[in-house]
Amino acid sequence: MAEPASLGAARVDAAPRVLIFDVFGTLVDWRRTVAQALQQALDVPPMRAESLADAWRAQYQPSMQAIRSGARAYTALDVLHRENLDVVLRDVQLESRLTPQARDELTMVWHRLDAWPDVTRALARLRPHFMLAPCSNGNVALMADLARHHGWHWDAIVGADMARDYKPQPIVYRRACEVFGATPAQVLMVAAHSSDLAAAAAVGLRTAFIARPDEHGPGLGEAASTVPVDWSANNLLDLAAQLGV
Amino acid sequence: MAEPASLGAARVDAAPRVLIFDVFGTLVDWRRTVAQALQQALDVPPMRAESLADAWRAQYQPSMQAIRSGARAYTALDVLHRENLDVVLRDVQLESRLTPQARDELTMVWHRLDAWPDVTRALARLRPHFMLAPCSNGNVALMADLARHHGWHWDAIVGADMARDYKPQPIVYRRACEVFGATPAQVLMVAAHSSDLAAAAAVGLRTAFIARPDEHGPGLGEAASTVPVDWSANNLLDLAAQLGV
Repeated sequence: MAEPASLGAARVDAAPRVLIFDVFGTLVDWRRTVAQALQQALDVPPMRAESLADAWRAQYQPSMQAIRSGARAYTALDVLHRENLDVVLRDVQLESRLTPQARDELTMVWHRLDAWPDVTRALARLRPHFMLAPCSNGNVALMADLARHHGWHWDAIVGADMARDYKPQPIVYRRACEVFGATPAQVLMVAAHSSDLAAAAAVGLRTAFIARPDEHGPGLGEAASTVPVDWSANNLLDLAAQLGV
Repeated sequence: MAEPASLGAARVDAAPRVLIFDVFGTLVDWRRTVAQALQQALDVPPMRAESLADAWRAQYQPSMQAIRSGARAYTALDVLHRENLDVVLRDVQLESRLTPQARDELTMVWHRLDAWPDVTRALARLRPHFMLAPCSNGNVALMADLARHHGWHWDAIVGADMARDYKPQPIVYRRACEVFGATPAQVLMVAAHSSDLAAAAAVGLRTAFIARPDEHGPGLGEAASTVPVDWSANNLLDLAAQLGV
């Protein structure tokens, strides 16, 4: 359950010094950008493209599971995205529409996803006050390209590549704290997904929920956290205000 | 042997897309800043402080060797620096001068080292054209603080924390390429030390030598590379010019 805003205000004195961010869904609207790219690449109607974007994303968790379980050596998300595209195209019998090279190019759409409208301004506002880093399952190359695309200034990139495992494995959150020389209590995990925040809290990090109610389409996202969190905000600018900056 | 400038110019067409940098000695003048901090903390004359800075730095390679050999689990450089300070103070019988807390604070001097005068301007000039990252044995916290101190904008921080091992182990250079999704030939290692460049070249990276002839005191640094390199420059601005930017 999300805690009331007044508690957020009471926490300002003990503010964390490092903010780490989930990216897909929390900072960027992956669904719209990916659907647009699929529509163009496959020459399909917009609603078909959206369902293909959902299908591509639906392969995301299962593809990481082999790595989390240890069945497969650590493999960067760019590679999984490319493999998952093959799966989707085969499932819907559109394989003939795209050459391998076109599939490589299409996979790069994940490096230039649109951001939610509050993000770029909020990150600039937070930066003078906190160390900032993405803590995503996306690899460094993907995160660095996204940052260039939007003009974000990260202090470092932590997450999957740093831990060579995928969230919500505890090592990903723990390693993020370690490399910043921070205790878990000094680190705030910011995400639009209750599962991500629950896993971070289990390691001792503090947590901030950001509502992205339209992540998976209109009304199809988390509007409120389903787990206890330290802060709960309507967007990143709201979180910045609650953190007193 | 350093190659002539004309070869540097001929290589522009095949310029790498990621530049990774050694930091201690190459970007920052560790000796002067550390000596100043020691002078102040221990109340010793300037020349004594310089020799203590050299003694502290002399513990650097041996302390990493236990980790490279596998005898000790990966331990961040901040921890090694703190341990090495104890060694130095014991060796010179100045242990009584600093409390444990004062030693902790003194160790943080490595997070605010002065940069060589060409560095900040050159990094800003290189950034529109290349992905930029430090590839240092310093940990993420140290690198992030140095970047804040000088206003450097890295795309990511690679190096020891990313590989959980220390240069010149091949995994450090290889991991730096991997996380950027780059082949070794697309990555240029920039350093003021021939040993670092030789190790990078052995993994297939391209190499640029930067002359820092005063790193260890006046005239006590590498004025020219002792190994073959792809570029050789007097400073980072000279390298930027040779890279055509």
